[in-house]
Amino acid sequence: MSKIKVAKFGGTSMASSETIKKVIDIVKNDEERKFIVVSAPGKRFSDDIKVTDLLYKVADEILDSQTSATYELVKQRFIEIAFGLNVSFSIETVLDQIFKEMLYEETVEFIVSRGEYLSAMILADVLGFEFVDAKDLIRFKGSKVDYQLTNKTARKALKHKEYVVISGFYGANPRGDIKLLSRGGADVTGALISRAVFAKVYENWSDIDGFLMCDPRIVENPHLIDMMTYKELRALSFMGASVIHSDTFYPVSKEGIPINARNTFNPSSPGTFIYDYVPASKSKNVITGIAGLNNFTLIIIEKHLMDETPGFDRKVLSFCEKLDIQVEHFPSGTDTFSMMIESKYLTGDKRETLINQIKKTMKPDTVEVLENISLISIVGRNLMANKYNMLKLFSALVNTNITLRMIDYGSNGTNIVIGVDDIDYEYAINAVYNEFVREDHER
Amino acid sequence: MSKIKVAKFGGTSMASSETIKKVIDIVKNDEERKFIVVSAPGKRFSDDIKVTDLLYKVADEILDSQTSATYELVKQRFIEIAFGLNVSFSIETVLDQIFKEMLYEETVEFIVSRGEYLSAMILADVLGFEFVDAKDLIRFKGSKVDYQLTNKTARKALKHKEYVVISGFYGANPRGDIKLLSRGGADVTGALISRAVFAKVYENWSDIDGFLMCDPRIVENPHLIDMMTYKELRALSFMGASVIHSDTFYPVSKEGIPINARNTFNPSSPGTFIYDYVPASKSKNVITGIAGLNNFTLIIIEKHLMDETPGFDRKVLSFCEKLDIQVEHFPSGTDTFSMMIESKYLTGDKRETLINQIKKTMKPDTVEVLENISLISIVGRNLMANKYNMLKLFSALVNTNITLRMIDYGSNGTNIVIGVDDIDYEYAINAVYNEFVREDHER
Repeated sequence: MSKIKVAKFGGTSMASSETIKKVIDIVKNDEERKFIVVSAPGKRFSDDIKVTDLLYKVADEILDSQTSATYELVKQRFIEIAFGLNVSFSIETVLDQIFKEMLYEETVEFIVSRGEYLSAMILADVLGFEFVDAKDLIRFKGSKVDYQLTNKTARKALKHKEYVVISGFYGANPRGDIKLLSRGGADVTGALISRAVFAKVYENWSDIDGFLMCDPRIVENPHLIDMMTYKELRALSFMGASVIHSDTFYPVSKEGIPINARNTFNPSSPGTFIYDYVPASKSKNVITGIAGLNNFTLIIIEKHLMDETPGFDRKVLSFCEKLDIQVEHFPSGTDTFSMMIESKYLTGDKRETLINQIKKTMKPDTVEVLENISLISIVGRNLMANKYNMLKLFSALVNTNITLRMIDYGSNGTNIVIGVDDIDYEYAINAVYNEFVREDHER
Repeated sequence: MSKIKVAKFGGTSMASSETIKKVIDIVKNDEERKFIVVSAPGKRFSDDIKVTDLLYKVADEILDSQTSATYELVKQRFIEIAFGLNVSFSIETVLDQIFKEMLYEETVEFIVSRGEYLSAMILADVLGFEFVDAKDLIRFKGSKVDYQLTNKTARKALKHKEYVVISGFYGANPRGDIKLLSRGGADVTGALISRAVFAKVYENWSDIDGFLMCDPRIVENPHLIDMMTYKELRALSFMGASVIHSDTFYPVSKEGIPINARNTFNPSSPGTFIYDYVPASKSKNVITGIAGLNNFTLIIIEKHLMDETPGFDRKVLSFCEKLDIQVEHFPSGTDTFSMMIESKYLTGDKRETLINQIKKTMKPDTVEVLENISLISIVGRNLMANKYNMLKLFSALVNTNITLRMIDYGSNGTNIVIGVDDIDYEYAINAVYNEFVREDHER
């Protein structure tokens, strides 16, 4: 097995000389951590401004007036870091040189990318690692990463290197122009590098321990998820913010490389491992996590002899598509077709427009609208391995007096999605969590 | 309340002089049975040929050679009936006259419609009721019934009449040409007449007691359904043959007229009442019935970041539509969209064509096909009134060791559809029936 770990450190880990000292300890603590990918310095405190955001302002100013007052703030951040870490080069000289290049290049992409560039350059110097510029590794085609070419290019460039720091978040097109990944894109850089160097694990270091089984604002002290599959992560993250950029998974799953979400500020926690596949025997929990989202609307269409109207469902969905309305679930039955839609898609007159179009074109008997529905996704690759789990799930909900508005199960064995009234949302999540997790752990 | 009952008697009830004597008893037994609608004589025994089928052959022969040997068989049927009932006119003269008209009119519709015509004429004579030809009541526009014009025409024509027998199954267009309803269409005639005369009930007399809660080939001696709603009937009949033509419901539900399915050969059974709405207090059963159908195929499509492909679902459904594939359910989740399709739609190369088109156009990560799935619809307008019913349902299934492949609930409160392996189909239906019905009744 490969003896290479790729470790990506996010903005909070790279925020100051103090936090970077923790990064250095982590890297030095394991000689397999050979390829380090970094973000630009992030927030040091909640009101702080990320260097990347400062650089967007710098870009505005430079493009507007060929000068930038904000660049002073950027300089201060890097000077603090460089002095605190005692770097071997003159940070002021580098910062002045970079400002000249910004004026010369005059593109938002180049200017904004300098946060990661400097971040990586400094860390490489302090660690005694080689700094490799992402522009020589990550290849763009238009505005998108060319995955295949990137893999080929990075694999070749890094083949004979050991102990390297790479700037995240950007790459270059064939002409050498700097191109940016989307926000949070340093995660993707790390994944692309992991694939290119055949890493045994891709460590994604941020400021949280990993993934929790539920939202801690809803469930008190939820457990950390020790391991899960990519599919489970997707099923959980769809309904809430994810700590890892969703484009991250494709490159690593391609090579079967696990992601390990870790906390720079609590390195003793093993974090969460995310695999392409986890054998059932390796799991102690029945459910992996519970995710949910409020404020859905269920539109229930009834029409006698609906199946005699060919393409009824397809036509209704095409109305939604034209109105940019995304449909999450499609409960259906004899003479009825329904759509579960996040209510944010039905604001303004879109709801009325959609319903009127359905009424006018499809001539239904009735169109009923049910609002304030929450969807809850109970995720667990082992959920269906034991038939009694389904029973446990429903008894937990029923015994807590939750009214079920929808059940959608069958598209994969990994999760089951239920609909409840918004008012029952938190009770339902706690009921399921208590049934499956508290009892298992605390017994 | 109206004091008018419309009674429609099907082919088995009108099959012979013996069976028609039962019809006469039933009609005479209730003076509110004022408008009688009849089918042509049906089968007297299982190998018998229905008069309507004989008449299709007669039509073939007449159109082919201006003569018909088969008409002799038709004559024999009606002669037996007329003599057995001692009608007041010469049946031979009428039959000869009708044959001349057949040769003159020379249309399949006219020829085939004479079964109901003669049936109604004979019954009217024996009952001492007025015979009204359906051609003066049921109005067609093209090949479809014009519901509004029919209602107006029939209402006016029948306004001052009492005690009438009407021929089912046909009507006429504005030029007076005879037009046929689809097979089983005498049910629809009865419904149209019920609406026109403001009937208090539409009695539909056949050779079975009404609707059973489940298929008696699967569950031993299932109970008769005493009452249900139109919606429940639709949800039950979708998955199996219905004893009542599906176009029947629209005209009567329009006027809030209940249908009463009765048995000519067991008139003491109250049969099944079908209402537009049944108040919860009127029901003693939790479930109304269980219907099911074997041999579905589940096509599971997975694509990472599926929601970034706008109209993914709509596009996949349009492929189905072009291939005339009807999709029954749409289980879905994050990055996955599935379709439950009756396998008969996927025969020949249609399955491969569909999957190839999905693969080529939608570029999914995987397309998985699960075959031999049965759908079971548990129908009951009160099913969700008590939350514990859902729990009872799942515990019945789980305790019988049934693996659930799909759950679709939410489009209406009337039913829940589950998917199981074909091999578990009969066990599952029996488990649910035993849980909800045997225990309730036999306690």
